[in-house]
Amino acid sequence: MSMSRVLLKISYLGTNYHGWQVQPNGVTVQETLQSKLEQIYKTKLSLTGCSRTDAGVHANEFYCHFDQPFNIKEEGIIKGLNSVLPKDIAVLSAERVDDDFHSRYSAKGKNYIYRILNAPQHDPFRNNRVWHIERKLNVDLINEFCKKICGTHDFYGFSSSGRTVTDTVRTVTECFAERKNDEIILSISADGFLYNMVRIIVGTAVDISDGKIDVSQIDKVFETKERSLAGITAPPDGLYLNKVFY
Amino acid sequence: MSMSRVLLKISYLGTNYHGWQVQPNGVTVQETLQSKLEQIYKTKLSLTGCSRTDAGVHANEFYCHFDQPFNIKEEGIIKGLNSVLPKDIAVLSAERVDDDFHSRYSAKGKNYIYRILNAPQHDPFRNNRVWHIERKLNVDLINEFCKKICGTHDFYGFSSSGRTVTDTVRTVTECFAERKNDEIILSISADGFLYNMVRIIVGTAVDISDGKIDVSQIDKVFETKERSLAGITAPPDGLYLNKVFY
Repeated sequence: MSMSRVLLKISYLGTNYHGWQVQPNGVTVQETLQSKLEQIYKTKLSLTGCSRTDAGVHANEFYCHFDQPFNIKEEGIIKGLNSVLPKDIAVLSAERVDDDFHSRYSAKGKNYIYRILNAPQHDPFRNNRVWHIERKLNVDLINEFCKKICGTHDFYGFSSSGRTVTDTVRTVTECFAERKNDEIILSISADGFLYNMVRIIVGTAVDISDGKIDVSQIDKVFETKERSLAGITAPPDGLYLNKVFY
Repeated sequence: MSMSRVLLKISYLGTNYHGWQVQPNGVTVQETLQSKLEQIYKTKLSLTGCSRTDAGVHANEFYCHFDQPFNIKEEGIIKGLNSVLPKDIAVLSAERVDDDFHSRYSAKGKNYIYRILNAPQHDPFRNNRVWHIERKLNVDLINEFCKKICGTHDFYGFSSSGRTVTDTVRTVTECFAERKNDEIILSISADGFLYNMVRIIVGTAVDISDGKIDVSQIDKVFETKERSLAGITAPPDGLYLNKVFY
């Protein structure tokens, strides 16, 4: 039996899912996609994702791979899946990759964006897709904080107890915020992310803008690894896995 | 008792509503907003909208008015409603108007836009918000049709049997389509619209692009008032009441 590995690039609105990874209580993107693949190939399959995402978190771009029990052309996989998947998940591309390619371990880094709707009123069309904050945020102050986040640090203090790794040092290659119309978008790229890391960084950015935390305190979070010195955990709604670098 | 008329500008995502107007089977925007107003004013109220919209149709801008049993400042009405409304409805503004102002009868015209996602794959983030058409549409041909729609015509053939009016002559002041990235957006302004008129015009535009209907047939729809000579009725998903002119 000749197996061949296929890498899927997908996109999903996370609102109705309990994240990517299969779990007992709630429908996940992984099980939804895997069941459609099994329907197409008429056999059990294993589907591996590039990352876990939390419930309610979205993906503009997410990669996962599986080994085909028999060959279906890339175009056929895309069309076949898109015709049966729920409309909040889309397969953007499918490509054959080497057997040692791994959607998670081959990833060199990822980029997340976080969208804050910074306006007096909420927007019906961006419900569940942004974090709505009415008071005006200070983007300059947030960017001072972003500069401190850049570089190689122990991000233990910027992660939650659900973390599954022991090495908590990560290199943030880019972190900045910018105002686009009525939104503030924070973009962060790193070689890897700890559990809830982006959401805690965004929550801390907002606490800094609100004057609840001083930018200088960030050095202490790195030094002491004290989660309590960092800010709140931002809601999942505004978070998007945006790019994966291979 | 001094009554004062208040005009609300609202916006809503229509996906979860059976249109604006109160009806027996299904939750509507009108009853949702009215019940919140009655909660705030602690009395029964009558709320009148600028238009009926179909189930699943959205509004970037929709106006409605009511008479306050006692005065609450505009800012208080906005904040009070937005804090209790479901997140797929937002109050954008509130203003005091003359007692003879009527959100529906004072309207001089309206602008609707219709969004078609014209791309090979669907988009999870635009599910229920666009009409997804995979095959490439011909915008030039659609604009030839749009030119024929402009002007004063009897639009009976471009309306559905649910229509409630006898005078079916309307003046379309603007009608054009343009490609914006992967979308084709059709914009239409008129002094008034018949039941399903925009959706039938959009469906006809697509049938013309597909070569199922010739542009020259449009004159016959006006002459004969034959609904069957016009095209299909586009789904509600892509339709947005966009502006109301007073």
